[in-house]
Amino acid sequence: MKAEEFLALVQGKQDSAANRGMSLEEELNESNAYYVSHDIASVHKKPTPVQIVKVDYPSRSAAVIREAYFRQPSTTDYNGVFEGRYLDFEAKETRNKTALPLGNFHEHQINHMCLVVKQRGIAFAIVRFTVHDETYVLDASHIIHFWKESIRGGRKSIPYAYIKEHGHLIPVGYRPRLDYLSVVKQYYFS
Amino acid sequence: MKAEEFLALVQGKQDSAANRGMSLEEELNESNAYYVSHDIASVHKKPTPVQIVKVDYPSRSAAVIREAYFRQPSTTDYNGVFEGRYLDFEAKETRNKTALPLGNFHEHQINHMCLVVKQRGIAFAIVRFTVHDETYVLDASHIIHFWKESIRGGRKSIPYAYIKEHGHLIPVGYRPRLDYLSVVKQYYFS
Repeated sequence: MKAEEFLALVQGKQDSAANRGMSLEEELNESNAYYVSHDIASVHKKPTPVQIVKVDYPSRSAAVIREAYFRQPSTTDYNGVFEGRYLDFEAKETRNKTALPLGNFHEHQINHMCLVVKQRGIAFAIVRFTVHDETYVLDASHIIHFWKESIRGGRKSIPYAYIKEHGHLIPVGYRPRLDYLSVVKQYYFS
Repeated sequence: MKAEEFLALVQGKQDSAANRGMSLEEELNESNAYYVSHDIASVHKKPTPVQIVKVDYPSRSAAVIREAYFRQPSTTDYNGVFEGRYLDFEAKETRNKTALPLGNFHEHQINHMCLVVKQRGIAFAIVRFTVHDETYVLDASHIIHFWKESIRGGRKSIPYAYIKEHGHLIPVGYRPRLDYLSVVKQYYFS
């Protein structure tokens, strides 16, 4: 992997190998900006956590970070509020045709999802199968279930067929491009 | 300001001049860790946003950021979920005896608070007057009100006396040290 590709990856621009149009993260950022600007919801991606070690500061406005390291996030990447409800989700894109590998999640993210559910927030993943060009909202309960099974020696991925059955396909639109809140509203609000 | 002090400040450790025991941010981090570990709430500080420009990467695990810049946050610093409600707040510490300067807030933070309120989230600031050794929960409506007045030529700060009257003093405890959720529960849940 080249330096630019690595940088793009950690900054969430796009997986260079999945480089077919916009990445899931770019579409989510665009959709979230649309929701915010139209007062529909307040959902934001959290910044990439970095441990800052050394800063050059000719003046505060021009401070340059000269040494810093990536830290593992302790939560999911996105959260916010939508019509009185707390939303919390992780976005995962895979080029795998048949399953979403669980290696895409960290244990503390699973623990975080469990706590959000306990606190009556809405927790889910937005999962994109790039090969199928399909993006799903998958409730956290399914991810937690497969995660627990994998710890007990079960499979280390969630089958595509399972997600197709238990997830909710997000229709592709124009504005916003990825209107996941319409799906959230349909399935979580009653 | 020395390099170490600047670094401590941007990383939110503590204002070196206000260095009397724990900083507000440290106490909040400790309290939030307590809430999370006891399943009481899921509230986290967002990472400091940085624009990464250059990364050295002998291997992914050892990637070193060699050039990056601080970006202005587009939201408040803390958010999460507590008993089904979305919480969103900013923490401000001042050594000023008589008022909280509004320069402590940015316009997009005010806009963010407005949207959170519209979406029926709970938005507030946690304000510490270090000289008085008092910390208050102050509802976003007051901050938005004073902000709008200041744009119309009004005062550029919120008086201490006003916050004492309209805010809610957080009692100091042991575990958690700053139990702001007890105050939130008392005043926002009915």
